[in-house]
Amino acid sequence: MKHVVIVGGGFAGLHAAKKLGNKKGVRVTLLDRTNHHLFQPLLYQVAMAALSPADIAGPIRHILAGYRNITVLQDEVFEVHLAAQHIITPRSRLDYDYLILCCGSQHAYFGHEEWEEFAPGLKTIEQATEIRRRVLTAYEAAEREEDPQKQRSHLTFAIVGGGPTGVELAGAIGEMSRFTLDRDFRNIDPKLTRIILIEAGPRILPSFPAKLAGKATRDLEKLGVQVWANSPVTKIDGTGVQIDKERIECATVLWAAGVRPSALNAALGVALDRQGRVIVEPDLSVAGHPEVFVAGDQAHFDHGLAHPLPGIAPVALQQGHWIAQNILRSIRGAAPRPFQYLDKGQLATIGRSRAILQLGNLQLSGFLAWVAWLIIHIYYLIGFKNRLFVTLNWAWSFFSFRRGARLIINKEWRFYKSPQRDP
Amino acid sequence: MKHVVIVGGGFAGLHAAKKLGNKKGVRVTLLDRTNHHLFQPLLYQVAMAALSPADIAGPIRHILAGYRNITVLQDEVFEVHLAAQHIITPRSRLDYDYLILCCGSQHAYFGHEEWEEFAPGLKTIEQATEIRRRVLTAYEAAEREEDPQKQRSHLTFAIVGGGPTGVELAGAIGEMSRFTLDRDFRNIDPKLTRIILIEAGPRILPSFPAKLAGKATRDLEKLGVQVWANSPVTKIDGTGVQIDKERIECATVLWAAGVRPSALNAALGVALDRQGRVIVEPDLSVAGHPEVFVAGDQAHFDHGLAHPLPGIAPVALQQGHWIAQNILRSIRGAAPRPFQYLDKGQLATIGRSRAILQLGNLQLSGFLAWVAWLIIHIYYLIGFKNRLFVTLNWAWSFFSFRRGARLIINKEWRFYKSPQRDP
Repeated sequence: MKHVVIVGGGFAGLHAAKKLGNKKGVRVTLLDRTNHHLFQPLLYQVAMAALSPADIAGPIRHILAGYRNITVLQDEVFEVHLAAQHIITPRSRLDYDYLILCCGSQHAYFGHEEWEEFAPGLKTIEQATEIRRRVLTAYEAAEREEDPQKQRSHLTFAIVGGGPTGVELAGAIGEMSRFTLDRDFRNIDPKLTRIILIEAGPRILPSFPAKLAGKATRDLEKLGVQVWANSPVTKIDGTGVQIDKERIECATVLWAAGVRPSALNAALGVALDRQGRVIVEPDLSVAGHPEVFVAGDQAHFDHGLAHPLPGIAPVALQQGHWIAQNILRSIRGAAPRPFQYLDKGQLATIGRSRAILQLGNLQLSGFLAWVAWLIIHIYYLIGFKNRLFVTLNWAWSFFSFRRGARLIINKEWRFYKSPQRDP
Repeated sequence: MKHVVIVGGGFAGLHAAKKLGNKKGVRVTLLDRTNHHLFQPLLYQVAMAALSPADIAGPIRHILAGYRNITVLQDEVFEVHLAAQHIITPRSRLDYDYLILCCGSQHAYFGHEEWEEFAPGLKTIEQATEIRRRVLTAYEAAEREEDPQKQRSHLTFAIVGGGPTGVELAGAIGEMSRFTLDRDFRNIDPKLTRIILIEAGPRILPSFPAKLAGKATRDLEKLGVQVWANSPVTKIDGTGVQIDKERIECATVLWAAGVRPSALNAALGVALDRQGRVIVEPDLSVAGHPEVFVAGDQAHFDHGLAHPLPGIAPVALQQGHWIAQNILRSIRGAAPRPFQYLDKGQLATIGRSRAILQLGNLQLSGFLAWVAWLIIHIYYLIGFKNRLFVTLNWAWSFFSFRRGARLIINKEWRFYKSPQRDP
């Protein structure tokens, strides 16, 4: 019985596990720091109060409960010993015959980790809830505030990073301020919210064709978002953002500017690219270790390609599946097959009914692209219940212009400790 | 233009505000520490991973957005000055012509506030999320644990307090352990979960007739819950519960044993009952202050009754409505009318399809009572969307035996700070 250890329950890990589930001659242990698989492409909707966390996440052990050869552990990996073929967790040592590393990525602040406190990123449910708390609290604070300068600062949102996440966050704030919150306040006009999308490079959405990115920029502007290109941020503090000599006073800054792979990579002793991702072989294994595979955001794969594959869900999903197939081949003595990526294109959505889509030579924008976005995201959501509920939630929001999850939830739960106060 | 200040956006405050909404000659300011109205009777379902917070809560300012004479502020009340007719918040002073106090209650630990850390109560969304985190984390820890004694402690849940909340929590854990988690684990059998409902008095559900309480006890036993009556808790610490010489080793303790009203009461300088509630006049005003009213859990009303009215939703709702009517009468020069409570009976639910109901001489138990419970709770839920989604969620759980919101969400959101680790 061969033991496969999978580290990480994201798209890559989950699909590798499913492929290995109930197969003879193999048992699987999947470890994850959290208890849930998260459908990350919709995380910005949790941050923007449109969906609840449970709509887009489900317990990993429940998703895999039907596979009797799979054990799921909520645990963390401290060390990987490639030569000895085991991993170390805070509680135990796990020996493996095959290892799949797919720990994803987290936000990178380019040496300014102190910015995180003022500008949360969007990778986990905790961060999404924190962003939601900050955005909604800013409006409450603005409603109470009498000093017009402070009020303006509460009603200003800076989003750093013009990739799909930054665009989606900015568009959602535009949508919310222009439509959802319209009638709810007495002392402020939410429609005067200033939303600034800050991008260091010459334009937003650099991975998309320039024409589509231009359309997205126009769509953002219609929602009241201003795009500041060529604007590398030089400082973020508790009251605003600095771009060289320019300064924006704002209570809320969101970070969508860069990612870096798991810190585990640096300790592996294998070849990494400049971002710190493991440079994998054509079959997704690690050079010199045919029994160790890396997938998803943690891997750098560029065989036969002009650019390495991007850190998006279809890549991770296909790689996880492929690795599992190669492990099954290896167990029955067959040679591994080099990974072939089937391009599913790329998508970004702007507000409630616009998106851009690129697939090979096909370029779509506007409502039609948004419908495609909708169908694809519902199709890939894990579980019948999530599909049903997210569809209903969206239908409701679409026709009512409302957001279903506008709750400010504090971090402290105790009464007898001083509760978390708003800033 | 008369100014009515309402402190608290629970059942009493919300219904008072609605009654005063868009009425001539009156403007209303409603203050609440949170931004949401919470449908507290279903809070235990959030704690037990069956519903998401957004299913049972909605932003107060959105619920009241249609009333142009109402301002909602997320703020706290520090001081009430009855003689000068104003209240003090951290940010401002608010003068009032009429004041409605309905701040609800919080858990009381009978002089053992240090127990709260080990035994959270269930009054807020933050607490419900914390309880969910503890219960689900206990199963994850048990699955990892190899020491059988520690494993047993992770699989033991003590609920202190045999009122409706304690019964509902215990029943839900029974349901979850016996049905929902059945197939999800490899190293533990969730069906062996020990659930102990600890009550200081001679039986659970003292406000119900003994016969109904007996049925509830039997229903709990069928779900694996053991009721320990006549068992006053003498100590709670990080590893268990002490009842005199007896001791239960358990990783999870939940508190449902007692409430006390807002701390604001003590500073009012008016007559309070032994629990600290304001003893109100027949018209729900404060003696000597016909312009100040108290409602809901914060008030003690016993005019013409054998016992003071209990702290339940129908009482708060009717009182809020009544106070608003009396204020409108006072504005047009009419005398206030004494409050008359229309008894809507009482209900408690046990697990997925059993409940008990008492209304006057009518006593129901089992499935029929549960259907009544279902209809009543859906009917009173705020908002069409919540009704639809909660109904669907329940239908889905009922037929699939699953729980839709089994997410463990950590308190710390930052990567660059050490994240919250499981115990």
